[in-house]
Amino acid sequence: MSVLVVGSVGIDDVKTAEESHKDLLGGSASYAAVAASFFSPVNLVGVVGNDFPDAHRQLYTSKGVDINGLEVAAGETFRWSGEYEVDMNNRKTLSIALNVFETFQPKVPAAYRKSDIVLLANIAPALQSMVLDQMEKPRFVIADTMDLWINIARADLLALIKRVDMLILNDSEAKLLTGVTNTVVAGHEIQKMGPRYVAIKKGEHGCLLFGPDQLFAIPAFPLTRVPDPTGAGDCFAGGLAGYCAQQKTVDFQTLKEAVLRGTIVASYNVEAFSLKRLESLTASEIQSRLELYQRLTTI
Amino acid sequence: MSVLVVGSVGIDDVKTAEESHKDLLGGSASYAAVAASFFSPVNLVGVVGNDFPDAHRQLYTSKGVDINGLEVAAGETFRWSGEYEVDMNNRKTLSIALNVFETFQPKVPAAYRKSDIVLLANIAPALQSMVLDQMEKPRFVIADTMDLWINIARADLLALIKRVDMLILNDSEAKLLTGVTNTVVAGHEIQKMGPRYVAIKKGEHGCLLFGPDQLFAIPAFPLTRVPDPTGAGDCFAGGLAGYCAQQKTVDFQTLKEAVLRGTIVASYNVEAFSLKRLESLTASEIQSRLELYQRLTTI
Repeated sequence: MSVLVVGSVGIDDVKTAEESHKDLLGGSASYAAVAASFFSPVNLVGVVGNDFPDAHRQLYTSKGVDINGLEVAAGETFRWSGEYEVDMNNRKTLSIALNVFETFQPKVPAAYRKSDIVLLANIAPALQSMVLDQMEKPRFVIADTMDLWINIARADLLALIKRVDMLILNDSEAKLLTGVTNTVVAGHEIQKMGPRYVAIKKGEHGCLLFGPDQLFAIPAFPLTRVPDPTGAGDCFAGGLAGYCAQQKTVDFQTLKEAVLRGTIVASYNVEAFSLKRLESLTASEIQSRLELYQRLTTI
Repeated sequence: MSVLVVGSVGIDDVKTAEESHKDLLGGSASYAAVAASFFSPVNLVGVVGNDFPDAHRQLYTSKGVDINGLEVAAGETFRWSGEYEVDMNNRKTLSIALNVFETFQPKVPAAYRKSDIVLLANIAPALQSMVLDQMEKPRFVIADTMDLWINIARADLLALIKRVDMLILNDSEAKLLTGVTNTVVAGHEIQKMGPRYVAIKKGEHGCLLFGPDQLFAIPAFPLTRVPDPTGAGDCFAGGLAGYCAQQKTVDFQTLKEAVLRGTIVASYNVEAFSLKRLESLTASEIQSRLELYQRLTTI
């Protein structure tokens, strides 16, 4: 099966306490699509400006990501600039320029409309819905979101999540969406809003997966160095979606295995800025860290 | 094997967003000793005033805890009063009265001096050292500590941890002690300060266990209700120490099993105020939650 990834494609400037890098490939769809590509064929829908560098485009294609759905619009590519504190859990956005994203209306190419798995990576929920409108009976729809949309587009988000099989968000976002401080209860509350499955990401603390009367809790892969956490959540979602597309059926057991894959790909991604680590990542490296993870987390 | 538990014994007033209770049995040694009692014989060393209620004393003995080492001094028992915010990760101390603790010098009864496992539950590190001075070749010494001692008694703490096999502390304390923000690196730094084993508690996010070139990461037991988190860390340490005492040898594999037991006992403890839940807790309940935990955390 194949996965359709829609989301933002951008150019990032990222500053940490130790390093600063400019003009990096970024955006939720970039991370998610490349992460998914380790497991299944990927079709990408997004928008860039006519300034988008060929090198970035080549990174997608080198990973087998189909970018016929990557629209080129007149104007500049979406740009984001952010800075991490020494405690990398704290990030501030220094600037955002929507640019071509301002008027973006996602168009799903005819060849993508039968994609089995749809990953609506983090963008405005109205755009995520617009993609769903064009799909022909996808088997499994996953949406990722963020605090911004919960704050400024709650109605759109609530409408969207009624239509998805799975919602992915982080723990503070789950609390924001539900008003509930207990993460387990928040997960159950979100299930009542529509999605049968919910994954609550807790960054360095791992994640909780909720299914119908089912729960699965895992720690993150323990890392001693995290040069740049940007895109970890997107890679988690992408790895998860890609693994689902690799399987014949998507049920709770599939999703348990899928969150492990998402966890592992995300753990590699944060070892370098932008998508540098995923660029060289191999299937056998994923497999070997998966085995190491099992040893570190199993009695 | 038996475990010697030394630490504070107190009377607590605890307020949460939903409930408020007064004159509760509290103190690190109370929680730790009762938690350990589910796995092995426990000897308790601590101090109370002549106001200490018989009902509290009976709780220890009903759990088989030997309280011949519980000194009764002239004056009032140590008292603590605290309040939790709606987000229970945030607690403020409303008042502390050291009372008989002010001049306490722990005396280990002759019958306790050969205890195999020593758990130095959370008290001033100078007092923890004083207990160690009186022991006769314990097999395995575990110390718990807190931010207060890192801030006001760092030299004492550093001297103590050179002498222990294992240090237990929470993630913010590990950062405070080492000045390192990455939890995994902080654990390794603490090992360099002396203890071969380190457990870093992360509350609702589980814990990390460090051994010589070894690491083990587990999530917490997912709970939907936490009426009172007081004593969770003490119960974790107590359950861990009690399990070690139940085993013939203490190595990394034993400690992996031990942190699971500590996690499970702590998860029960937070389901009610003070030690109310542990009062009625049975070995078969521990076993059944252990099995449920395995299902919730294993592929």
